Amino acid sequence: MISFDNCKPVNGGVCAAKGFTAGSTRAGIKASSQKDDLAIIYCEKNCAAAAVYTTNVVKGAPITVTQNHLKNGIAQAVVVNSGNANTCNSNGVEIAELMCELTAQSLKINREDVIVASTGVIGQKLSPAPLEKHIPLLAGNLSNSETASTAACKAIMTTDTRLKEFAFEFELGGKTCHIGGISKGSGMINPNMATMLGFITTDANISPLMLKKALSDANLDSYSRVNVDGDTSTNDMVCVMASGLAGNTEITAENADFEVFFNALCAVMVNLARETARDGEGATKLLECVVLNAPSVDDASLISKSVISSSLVKTAVFAADANWGRILCAAGYSGAAFEPQKISVSIMSANGKVLVCENGAGADYSEELAHKVLSADEVTIMIDLQEKNAELNRSVAWGCDLTYDYVKINAEYRT
Amino acid sequence: MISFDNCKPVNGGVCAAKGFTAGSTRAGIKASSQKDDLAIIYCEKNCAAAAVYTTNVVKGAPITVTQNHLKNGIAQAVVVNSGNANTCNSNGVEIAELMCELTAQSLKINREDVIVASTGVIGQKLSPAPLEKHIPLLAGNLSNSETASTAACKAIMTTDTRLKEFAFEFELGGKTCHIGGISKGSGMINPNMATMLGFITTDANISPLMLKKALSDANLDSYSRVNVDGDTSTNDMVCVMASGLAGNTEITAENADFEVFFNALCAVMVNLARETARDGEGATKLLECVVLNAPSVDDASLISKSVISSSLVKTAVFAADANWGRILCAAGYSGAAFEPQKISVSIMSANGKVLVCENGAGADYSEELAHKVLSADEVTIMIDLQEKNAELNRSVAWGCDLTYDYVKINAEYRT
Repeated sequence: MISFDNCKPVNGGVCAAKGFTAGSTRAGIKASSQKDDLAIIYCEKNCAAAAVYTTNVVKGAPITVTQNHLKNGIAQAVVVNSGNANTCNSNGVEIAELMCELTAQSLKINREDVIVASTGVIGQKLSPAPLEKHIPLLAGNLSNSETASTAACKAIMTTDTRLKEFAFEFELGGKTCHIGGISKGSGMINPNMATMLGFITTDANISPLMLKKALSDANLDSYSRVNVDGDTSTNDMVCVMASGLAGNTEITAENADFEVFFNALCAVMVNLARETARDGEGATKLLECVVLNAPSVDDASLISKSVISSSLVKTAVFAADANWGRILCAAGYSGAAFEPQKISVSIMSANGKVLVCENGAGADYSEELAHKVLSADEVTIMIDLQEKNAELNRSVAWGCDLTYDYVKINAEYRT
Repeated sequence: MISFDNCKPVNGGVCAAKGFTAGSTRAGIKASSQKDDLAIIYCEKNCAAAAVYTTNVVKGAPITVTQNHLKNGIAQAVVVNSGNANTCNSNGVEIAELMCELTAQSLKINREDVIVASTGVIGQKLSPAPLEKHIPLLAGNLSNSETASTAACKAIMTTDTRLKEFAFEFELGGKTCHIGGISKGSGMINPNMATMLGFITTDANISPLMLKKALSDANLDSYSRVNVDGDTSTNDMVCVMASGLAGNTEITAENADFEVFFNALCAVMVNLARETARDGEGATKLLECVVLNAPSVDDASLISKSVISSSLVKTAVFAADANWGRILCAAGYSGAAFEPQKISVSIMSANGKVLVCENGAGADYSEELAHKVLSADEVTIMIDLQEKNAELNRSVAWGCDLTYDYVKINAEYRT
C-alpha cells in the first residue's frame, strides 16, 4: 500500500528540489488572452528523466518530439505553452522542434535535452514569431523562488480555475530530498496511461530506468484514476526530472530507497490528480469512489472509474440527490464481475455518513441526511462488494460533478 | 447492405400488424405523475417471440422474468409500466411475476407467454396494489386502432419528449405483411446488446429461431449504434412478436424471404433508434456520425460511436461550433487503428456541407458557413479515413448534443 507518512509538505512546487529554476511570461500565443502562456523549467545539470504520454492515436506534435528526445532518459529543461495545442497542423513537429532549439540555444544546453509540451485548441497553426521573441527573454529570467513555480503553474492553465502545485520533503539514506510538481487540466480529461500536463522535479538521485518504472507505476495510482469528461486528450503528458543534487546514493534497483521515492512521487501525483478532478470544468465538487472487497483489484478499478465517470451519477451528485440506483447501474456496466445482491453503498463527507444500499437493495435511510452529506464540496462514494478474504482488492478513482457550467464552458471555448 | 426500398411507411405502430391490440391506462404507479403509466400489447394467437437484453450486470427483475418466459421462443402479450424500474428491490422478481400472472389471468393465456418490462427510478419497491386493480381493467379494454398504439407508446415514456412509433408494410411471397414498433428511452442510453424498451409486432410468419437471429442482427445496426449519455441501463430490452397472420410461407432459414423481413425489421429499429438519439435528454439536435473507408468495419464502428459519445463534440455541436479538433481527438481515443494524417472530416446538414479537416490538418473553410451547417436540427459528421479498397468498411452511429437541459433534467429527476 502507498503511504505518505514520511512525506512532509513544503512550499516551492517545481522549484522545491535543488538545482531547479522556473519562470513564465506572456508571449501572446492566443491574442484574446491576457495571462502568461509560456513557461520554462530548467535544471543546472542534466537530469534522469521519464514521461508517460497519452494513448490517443491522434498525438500532438510536442508528444512526438518529446518521445524522441527522452529516448536516452536524460533531460535538462521543459518548455511549454498554453493557448494552442500545436496538434493536427501541417507544421506541428517543425514548431515543436523550434521551441526546443530556441530553449536550448538560450540555456546553452543540447536541443535533445529539452522536453516540449503544448495545450490549448487543436488544429490551429502555432505561430513561430512570439516563440522566437519570448523564449530567449524568458530563458534569461528564471528563478528558484516559490513564486517562479507558481507563475509557471499559472502559465500552463487553460480552463483551469485552481493552481495544481505540490511539493514534499523526504529522506533517503540520511539525505533530505525534495519532490514537487505542477499540473494543468480541467476538460478533455480521461487519462489512460498519462494525462493532461504534469511536470515534476526532484533532487533525489535515481537512474533513468528506475525513474521510468516509478513514474509508470505512480501514474496508474494517480492520474489514471481521474476522469472529468471521458475525453482522452491528444496532448497528455506527465514528466519527471531528477537532478540527483540531494546527494543520496543513486537508486538503481527496486530496493527500500525506491519504495521511499515511489511513495514521495505518489504523494505529488495523487495530490495533483485529485486537484485536477476537483477542478474539472464546471465542477462544484470533488467526487471520490472507493471500492472495497471486490473479486479482484481489476474489478475494483473498473467499478470505481465507471461510477465517477457516469453522467447520471455526476448530475445526481451536483443536485446532492442520493440516487444510488445510478451508482449500481454504473457499477453494473463497468465490465467488472460481481454479485449484485452483495453490493452495499455508503456516501460520506465532512457532513456525515449514510448507508443508502445494503445487499443490493435500498437501505432504510434519511433522504434529508443523505442530501446534507452530498452537499459537501468533497464527497466519497464507498462501495463494498463483500467478497470474503478480499481486503487487498480495493481501488479509488476521482471525478467531479456534471453541472450547467461544463456545458457553458465547452459550448463557448473557441469563441 | 440494408435497404428500406421495399418498406412502405404506414400508420398503426404496434397495431399495424394483424392480430395485435394494445392499450394503456393511468395506474398511479408514481403518485406525482398524471400521465398513463401502464400498457399492454396482446396478440389473439401465440407468437414466435425474441428479445435482446441489457448487458448490465445489475439487471432489472423484469429482465430476469422475461428471459425465463422467452426460453421457448413463444409469447402472446407484453405488460409494461413506467414510473418505477422494479430493479434493485428485495421483491422485484415477485412483483414482475405478479404482473405476468395478472395479465395472463385477465387475457386467459399462459403466464409464461407474457413479456414484462418496467422503466423508471431504480431501487424503490413497486407496489402491487395499482397493478392488481388496473391490469385486469386495462386487459379488458384493448383495441387495434392507431390511437391504441400511440397511447401505449405514451404510457411507456419517462423523460421522453417525442413519440417513437413506426410501422411499415412489405411483401413476402405475394402476401402483404406489416411490422411496427414503439420505443422509449431518453437518458441512461448507451445500449450495448439491447437497449431501453422497444416493442415490435409483425404479422409475418417466421420461426422463433429465425426471429431471434433477425432481431440480434438488426439490433447491431440500430439500437447498438445509439448513445445519449454513456449509461447502459439495467432494464434495456427490445422484443419482437410475430403472429404469422399475414399468411406467408413460414421463414425457417436465412433465405431471400429472411432478407426481406430483416430489412423491414431494420426499417423499424433504425428509425426507433434514431428517434431515441434525437430525443436524448435535453437534446436540441440529432447528431449522426458516418465513417467511411476505414481499415475495418470494427474500426469504423468504434470511431463513429466514440465521436457521437464525446462530451466535447456534443457541447460543440450544441454551440454550432466546428471545433473539429475534438472530433479527431474522439476518433483517436476510440481504440480504432487508423492513420491520423489521412483523416478528412466534413460536416453536413440541410443547410449545406463543409470540409473542415483534410489529411489530418485544418481545411480552408468558412467558420460562418460551418456555423450555419451546424445550426440545423440534424447534423452529420462524415469522417473519411481514405483507406484504399475499403468501400465496405463503413459505419454509422447516432447521438445528440449535450445541453444545459441534460444537467437540469438529471439533477432534478427524483424530486
